[in-house]
Amino acid sequence: MNIILIDPEEVSATNTVTLHDRRLGHIRKVLRSNTGDTVRIGLVNGMIGTGVIDELSRDRAILHIKADTPPPAKKPIDLILALPRPIMLKRILAQAASFGVARIFLINANRVEKSFFNATLLAPDNLTDCLRQGLEQGVDTILPELSVHPRFRPFVEDLLPPIAASCHIRLVAHPDTDLHLDQAAPQMAGKRSLLAIGPEGGWVDFEIERFREQGLIPFTLGPRILRMDTAVPALLAQIDLLGRLPAQP
Amino acid sequence: MNIILIDPEEVSATNTVTLHDRRLGHIRKVLRSNTGDTVRIGLVNGMIGTGVIDELSRDRAILHIKADTPPPAKKPIDLILALPRPIMLKRILAQAASFGVARIFLINANRVEKSFFNATLLAPDNLTDCLRQGLEQGVDTILPELSVHPRFRPFVEDLLPPIAASCHIRLVAHPDTDLHLDQAAPQMAGKRSLLAIGPEGGWVDFEIERFREQGLIPFTLGPRILRMDTAVPALLAQIDLLGRLPAQP
Repeated sequence: MNIILIDPEEVSATNTVTLHDRRLGHIRKVLRSNTGDTVRIGLVNGMIGTGVIDELSRDRAILHIKADTPPPAKKPIDLILALPRPIMLKRILAQAASFGVARIFLINANRVEKSFFNATLLAPDNLTDCLRQGLEQGVDTILPELSVHPRFRPFVEDLLPPIAASCHIRLVAHPDTDLHLDQAAPQMAGKRSLLAIGPEGGWVDFEIERFREQGLIPFTLGPRILRMDTAVPALLAQIDLLGRLPAQP
Repeated sequence: MNIILIDPEEVSATNTVTLHDRRLGHIRKVLRSNTGDTVRIGLVNGMIGTGVIDELSRDRAILHIKADTPPPAKKPIDLILALPRPIMLKRILAQAASFGVARIFLINANRVEKSFFNATLLAPDNLTDCLRQGLEQGVDTILPELSVHPRFRPFVEDLLPPIAASCHIRLVAHPDTDLHLDQAAPQMAGKRSLLAIGPEGGWVDFEIERFREQGLIPFTLGPRILRMDTAVPALLAQIDLLGRLPAQP
């Protein structure tokens, strides 16, 4: 937890917040703060700032907060993920949120195990919890937009077209090509990107064809097969880097 | 498991292997193979090839193997990691091995919790298991070289100089700089890289100074603080990408 996130409705009219939960535990046991100390806070979907500890006991912490610094800009990256198993999803949502991804679409695919859509983790509050943990890690306050799409075709046929149209760079990770990321998207600087990552076992041909129709270019990560919790940060980092570099020849 | 790893000493004079352990479970339950099917195998620290299933039962699988394809080249990347907590270490070793890292040095640092060095995970067999799982994921056979260094100074003063001398690119992740990876190492194409990643809480000044003396350049990942299991694949992927691109201006 590199920032203590506070819901705006927790803040009193005199700008104080009373904490009882794991944030209290963090202040006492990890930060080992004392009354009078200042901690870094952020308002969910709002500003970043500081909280001065007015009172601290085993039962509660009362902070006087001030939040007037904007959070870091979101990365102009939208992520389409074939729904992974819950334990992996939890980790990946936190990774993506800490990285600053703007939007996440969790979708079905032929090789997604159908039972994953019944996981309790998919309850909205649980998903938000995972994202908040990522924001707490990455020192950000803005929750990525997240949606779950249990049917592939309605997603790809009805929802994807406007999403794809809003992104200049459109990519789908797929081992059956020789094109690397920098070749599939040589001119990324400052552009909005859409990245689709498949399930263990990969996308099936039908899915790749539907993505192609929406302008997504298949690219390969190389001969090594990475687990989703390795592939996601690897690809986000490469897209981020390519976005910083001058256009490649 | 995208490749079934076999120890050379398991192979008979007639090139058969009998499997009883989780590799048998993988063949039966994940691959759902039958007698006569072919599976992808690799010899630890040796060649990749195929195994034809001669016999398959609940108790054992007998494969007739042939291995004459070289594994993918290792990435010319050496990784120095401040020892993380065991659960994180397990994940990171698998990530680094699946990625093809050549050498991994697990070292002490001021902000490493000392008890981590007593973890049972640090027993050589357990470390090798983590690396093997990464190779099984990444379809590789060559174990990265791995060593554990419970004292910072002897490592950095006695062991690091020849390691650093063998690498053209030397980097240490550190938030207190404005230099990004592509600025700290603009000319990476084809060059051997050394990358040091600190503990939660970062390196202390003394450590950064020792690294600087060995030519390691501090660089930042940006304002977002990533967990080690996000930062490691992110940085390995960026180094890999920069190594593929023409030199940056």
